[in-house]
Amino acid sequence: MPHIDLPNLPGIRGPMAFRPETSKPLNELVEVLLRHPNSLTAGERELIATYVSSLNTCHYCQSIHGAIAAAHLGGDEELVRCVKQDYHSAAITPKLKALLNIAGKVQRDGKNVTSEDVQAARNEGATDIEIHDTVLIAAAFCMYNRYVDGLATVQPQDPALYRERGKMVAREGYVSVNLPTVMQAEVAELVGR
Amino acid sequence: MPHIDLPNLPGIRGPMAFRPETSKPLNELVEVLLRHPNSLTAGERELIATYVSSLNTCHYCQSIHGAIAAAHLGGDEELVRCVKQDYHSAAITPKLKALLNIAGKVQRDGKNVTSEDVQAARNEGATDIEIHDTVLIAAAFCMYNRYVDGLATVQPQDPALYRERGKMVAREGYVSVNLPTVMQAEVAELVGR
Repeated sequence: MPHIDLPNLPGIRGPMAFRPETSKPLNELVEVLLRHPNSLTAGERELIATYVSSLNTCHYCQSIHGAIAAAHLGGDEELVRCVKQDYHSAAITPKLKALLNIAGKVQRDGKNVTSEDVQAARNEGATDIEIHDTVLIAAAFCMYNRYVDGLATVQPQDPALYRERGKMVAREGYVSVNLPTVMQAEVAELVGR
Repeated sequence: MPHIDLPNLPGIRGPMAFRPETSKPLNELVEVLLRHPNSLTAGERELIATYVSSLNTCHYCQSIHGAIAAAHLGGDEELVRCVKQDYHSAAITPKLKALLNIAGKVQRDGKNVTSEDVQAARNEGATDIEIHDTVLIAAAFCMYNRYVDGLATVQPQDPALYRERGKMVAREGYVSVNLPTVMQAEVAELVGR
């Protein structure tokens, strides 16, 4: 049971409906980081978010972002599982592996990231923006995970629920599925969609 | 030296200037959480941010938010130091102590927060919004701290620099001091100021 009186919605959607003032920038941040045009695909960015959420053992976040990642990757749930369990052996690019290494360090403490970690990503073709965004995605999910778990939100176990929602978010985006209608136009304009 | 080619600005200001698309929601979130009208004072909320940043040993964030807190608290730097070192003995309300206990648990893992922690805060008069905002402030600073440290940003040592900037942010807010002018009107409108 949630620690405070939240609307009956799973995971982050409860506190987001409870406090629209903070849900607006929280939604905008994830929209820019995970969906805006980027040299990393939406699937790759969702894999980074899923991996960090699994390191933080946040059931809701790793399930929903894993489902969104899978939706972006043609339904490949096995790849998502493999990235969470041992990304070194996953069928992903060497660049994404180098970025996941950085993300994993940020998850514990930003100070763990070394020049060698960053050089290794550069050697695989990573740009400054990609390195920046990887650090911020990892940092941001250290926030979202703690927000979801710290309020003891409802976190369903049924994978089918995440699968359905994941397809919808992959198709429509965070802003349009998470915000009250009255805010959608304003935020869509703000994030330049 | 920063891991990527950032503008020569201290702490989070470097990556924020580097990537305005993400700095907008990052600034808006901290503006809503730490400055919007709230039954917790701005000083109390800055103390929570400072405490979490000190637990994450982020030099820049604990210094700048400690300076902003002190500016809100009539220049009481000793109180800020005391909250960081041992908040139980600090001259703050029992309610703020109970909220700092929750914030400290969130800093490690949101799942550490117990019903007893939340009940203890309620017993001191904490509302659902205050408990929500405490959890989100703590979670958000787990992001900001990792962002600042994960990119190896420049973090000056001179307390005088933080003191001056702290007074300015306490007076003018995050949005107006951190964003390019062209964005200020838009964001000011968005956050309802």
